[in-house]
Amino acid sequence: MAVTDLDESIELYRSAFGAEVVHRTRNEKEGIEAAFLHTGTGEVELMGATRPESPVGKFLAKRGPGLHHVAYGVTNIAKALADARAAGLELIDSEPRMGMHGSLIAFVHPKSLGGVLTEFVEI
Amino acid sequence: MAVTDLDESIELYRSAFGAEVVHRTRNEKEGIEAAFLHTGTGEVELMGATRPESPVGKFLAKRGPGLHHVAYGVTNIAKALADARAAGLELIDSEPRMGMHGSLIAFVHPKSLGGVLTEFVEI
Repeated sequence: MAVTDLDESIELYRSAFGAEVVHRTRNEKEGIEAAFLHTGTGEVELMGATRPESPVGKFLAKRGPGLHHVAYGVTNIAKALADARAAGLELIDSEPRMGMHGSLIAFVHPKSLGGVLTEFVEI
Repeated sequence: MAVTDLDESIELYRSAFGAEVVHRTRNEKEGIEAAFLHTGTGEVELMGATRPESPVGKFLAKRGPGLHHVAYGVTNIAKALADARAAGLELIDSEPRMGMHGSLIAFVHPKSLGGVLTEFVEI
C-alpha cells in the first residue's frame, strides 16, 4: 500500500487492527521508506516516498494513496520466475534481486496480470 | 481483483501460479461473479461484472482492471467492527452481512484507511 505519511499509517494499522511492525527500512536510492506489518498469516507493506520524483512518489501523485501491488511468498523464486515466463508473463525482473526485507524478490509486469503489479518474495 | 474476463483470469492464475479455484459464485442482484483461488495461506478473489452499471462494472470503467480491495480473516467480526469503530474508522457496513463466500463480512470505508477499501471476513 502506498501511503502519504508512513508514521501515521503505522499508527492507524496498530490502533485499528493491532498490527505490529516487524521490519522498517529506508532506501534512499529508490526513494522509498517501508514498514512491514504482521497481519495474521500475511504481511502488509506500507510504502512512503522519500522524494516526490521516486517511483512511489509518482504513484502517489498520479493515483493517490492506496493499493500498490501484491506479493506472494515462494520457496524457490528461480522456479517461480521460470514458471511465470513459461506461462507467458512479462517479467520486470528477469533475475531475482535483493529486496528491502532482506529476501530475494522479482516483479511481474502488471499488464501480464490484469493490471495487478505482482511480486515474488523468496521465503 | 477486478477483472474484465473471469474465465480468462482464472486460467491465467492457474497456468502461471498453479492457483486452484476453491469457490465460484454469481450474485445477480449485485451484478458480480467471483472466483476465490487458493494461494498458499491466503486467497485471491477475482471479481467480474455481470453488467456494466454494477459496482464492479463501474470500477472497471473508471479505473480499469486491477486491485480492488483487501480482506482480512477475523475470528470475531463483531469485535473487529467494534475495534475499528473505536479507532475512528468509518464503516460501510455497521453490522456484519452475509458475503458471497458464505461467511459474514463487513467493509470499512477506504477514506479511513489511506484509500484502501478493506473487508473483514469471519473465518
